[in-house]
Amino acid sequence: MNLPYPIILASNSPRRQELLRNAGISFSVRVKETDEQFPATMPVVEVARFLADKKAEAFRDELMDELIITADTTVVLRDEVLNKPANANEAASMLQRLSGTSHKVITGVCLLHRKQKVSFDDTTVVYFRQLEKEEIDYYIAHYKPFDKAGSYGIQEWIGMIGIEKIEGSYYNVMGLPVEKLYNYLKQLKHDF
Amino acid sequence: MNLPYPIILASNSPRRQELLRNAGISFSVRVKETDEQFPATMPVVEVARFLADKKAEAFRDELMDELIITADTTVVLRDEVLNKPANANEAASMLQRLSGTSHKVITGVCLLHRKQKVSFDDTTVVYFRQLEKEEIDYYIAHYKPFDKAGSYGIQEWIGMIGIEKIEGSYYNVMGLPVEKLYNYLKQLKHDF
Repeated sequence: MNLPYPIILASNSPRRQELLRNAGISFSVRVKETDEQFPATMPVVEVARFLADKKAEAFRDELMDELIITADTTVVLRDEVLNKPANANEAASMLQRLSGTSHKVITGVCLLHRKQKVSFDDTTVVYFRQLEKEEIDYYIAHYKPFDKAGSYGIQEWIGMIGIEKIEGSYYNVMGLPVEKLYNYLKQLKHDF
Repeated sequence: MNLPYPIILASNSPRRQELLRNAGISFSVRVKETDEQFPATMPVVEVARFLADKKAEAFRDELMDELIITADTTVVLRDEVLNKPANANEAASMLQRLSGTSHKVITGVCLLHRKQKVSFDDTTVVYFRQLEKEEIDYYIAHYKPFDKAGSYGIQEWIGMIGIEKIEGSYYNVMGLPVEKLYNYLKQLKHDF
């Protein structure tokens, strides 16, 4: 897809970069550190979009004609956002909690171009079967999921052998709701 | 996973080989040509399992202690099995039919080891948004999906930008229901 302005992906995630590239969109990467705090009273399903928006706002004053894309992915179990695990114990107890039940993965995306801003999110429901303790330990030891919210990657071993089904977009769980994003960009081509 | 006998995957598909490898299962590949005919009166949802079974039976007389894994993936639109497209025109008309609606992807798997045989299948429902003619033409020209039942790969461009959501296993759509297969193998470790 050819857009009439440069696209910047504001994410260090190699998975997001790969997904956007495979979607046929040309872009460069520019990253800014943003604190990932959110109001304690905020409904958990709104956090991903809130953080994506915050990441985009950090660029507002320095943008010329670029379109900036930011994203944030949260793993939501009941009413709780699961963060990145601090260590192997925390990862094991997170995976134990995800075992045998479903959770939501929500990716919020924000597109900012000059004065215009659009944000949206996408939700995928993920069902893990009952995981064995040995499976959880093996995964953590070999894949070290410390950079992953919820302590797992759907594209890694535990996702392949432990996830029974999903409802929604697979790529959204990987970190970018590619189909939705593509269609927003197609729209913007005309509007922005 | 260590099994007490050699595993043979009877599939030329690089995607299936990659999925099985990433699931942590050691195997070698041995392929036999099988005709993919099925009875005209057979319910379409049974075809994948029937063909996987047929592929496994072709090995029965030559197996020693190996466990053979065969698979067949069908794309089912209403009451019809969509085959591999013969040319670009056929691919375009198949994708046109999948556009804006849902279809089923069913992978049948058969496991054969000495006198024991297990077969099962897994179904994923795939929802394509309305695809534009230019998108379909671009995809066929660049990805040449002539080896793919239903004329698309979920892991390719058209799958990323055109599929709104799925219900079921993503890897099943790629050609192997990895989670189910893994759990059958875990079971067999004790039973076979």
